[in-house]
Amino acid sequence: MRRVRVAGVQMDPKILEKEKNLSKCLEFLETAAKKKAEIIVFPECALTGYCFSSLEESFSVAEPVLGPSSRAIASLCTELNVYTIIGFLERDGEKYYNTVVLIGPKGLIGKYRKIHLPFLGIDRFVNPGDQPLKVFKTGVGRIGMNICFDVRMPESARILTLLGAESIMLPTNWPKGAELVPKYVINARAYENRVNFIAVNRVGKERGFEFIGQSKIVDYSGKTLVEANSLKEEIIFATIDLDGARKKHVILVPGEFELPLFKGRRPEFYGILVKAINTY
Amino acid sequence: MRRVRVAGVQMDPKILEKEKNLSKCLEFLETAAKKKAEIIVFPECALTGYCFSSLEESFSVAEPVLGPSSRAIASLCTELNVYTIIGFLERDGEKYYNTVVLIGPKGLIGKYRKIHLPFLGIDRFVNPGDQPLKVFKTGVGRIGMNICFDVRMPESARILTLLGAESIMLPTNWPKGAELVPKYVINARAYENRVNFIAVNRVGKERGFEFIGQSKIVDYSGKTLVEANSLKEEIIFATIDLDGARKKHVILVPGEFELPLFKGRRPEFYGILVKAINTY
Repeated sequence: MRRVRVAGVQMDPKILEKEKNLSKCLEFLETAAKKKAEIIVFPECALTGYCFSSLEESFSVAEPVLGPSSRAIASLCTELNVYTIIGFLERDGEKYYNTVVLIGPKGLIGKYRKIHLPFLGIDRFVNPGDQPLKVFKTGVGRIGMNICFDVRMPESARILTLLGAESIMLPTNWPKGAELVPKYVINARAYENRVNFIAVNRVGKERGFEFIGQSKIVDYSGKTLVEANSLKEEIIFATIDLDGARKKHVILVPGEFELPLFKGRRPEFYGILVKAINTY
Repeated sequence: MRRVRVAGVQMDPKILEKEKNLSKCLEFLETAAKKKAEIIVFPECALTGYCFSSLEESFSVAEPVLGPSSRAIASLCTELNVYTIIGFLERDGEKYYNTVVLIGPKGLIGKYRKIHLPFLGIDRFVNPGDQPLKVFKTGVGRIGMNICFDVRMPESARILTLLGAESIMLPTNWPKGAELVPKYVINARAYENRVNFIAVNRVGKERGFEFIGQSKIVDYSGKTLVEANSLKEEIIFATIDLDGARKKHVILVPGEFELPLFKGRRPEFYGILVKAINTY
């Protein structure tokens, strides 16, 4: 059985304090690796902070992929022989994105630019992601990435699963008001797609917004394996089963009670999903 | 504000005992109407039972839409001036479907034939629904119908919401093993789509299968308004807000924290959703 030990770093990034955030991330990376984590997931905008008041304000902290901070992360991943997923503001020429990168022992594997933007924090100013959702085949399984508000759209995790994801990583910045996401939605995403789901939130306050923690790792059956139990910085760990997430035809009583979770889809009736309807 | 009082009849239908089931349903209809329900929702296959061993066995209980049983229900709806949604096996020429009908004071409004079939009970033998999901404009709001396993597919409720549903009704037959559906999925469906969600399950045992009740009514914000608190027959009631379910652009802090729940969709990236991929 292919199993992977995952860590989620529920941390409190400080807005605009990039060096401080980076050195904290490097420390967390080392701690998690010492505790045998093979892949270590950080929150959205872990290196930069999130509640910027304007795009101009964030200029100084945005970096290319890879840039100085993410290169430092990559070096440590090589040294520790681990994978990581970490979020920051990406600058690409004149364009800015809310991005997460997937880095392995051999360097950058891929990136994801948030495609669903709420009107909140830096998301009010960055460009919406301009590339399709993608799954990356790695030494720790087939990985898809979503960011925060993406999870509110059932399409996001569904697409990654159809693309073959065994695990979906969700770096996030859930503020107060988003409590029902960890309470219901994360488990539902894992359950409906039969995919491991790792949601890593931040804690702390930033410019009037308070973040709610509640990071959690849910296995492909929809059961919570571990959840952060405080509003403090902490690392959560769990071992996920990648092969389980590939069994999409669930046999409960052979020949009497089986669930064709994906074979039973009826895409011939799904046309409206690909139309731009603003619904009221 | 457009509000509607809904009742969910969590009952124990007896397989093959159609007359008994019908007279029970008529009684429940009367009781719920007396308690001011405007629309009364019954479980999947409420008139027929569900765990048939073959299609042949169910021949005697299948009926056209409308047929003798559903006409009796319709007459009482006229008399009581209420709407109802009730499930039974539909016979249409040589074809059979797992169907629910929507009936109002003036008679039949519409029907829905289950499109996503698990391999369980009568669903092993009926034809998969051959018509697209649809929303019906009624005197008690814009209503969409799903049946049981449909809810496991996030596409089902998403499509009904895109079609304008203010409320989604889910007659169901959840057996043991489906506990995570009421625990997580129902609330997630309401929350992600910002739609009222009414899930009505059966109770009791049938040929080795035990049904878990836990019927619930969840409002468009994702909060549970009421849930059945026993494994016995009972009627649950709640008043839902139809206008709330139409506000898909959620303003939490004006100009700073807003959620474009549907305007923020990115259908240009959703093409894979309409492809037939069996995923492992």
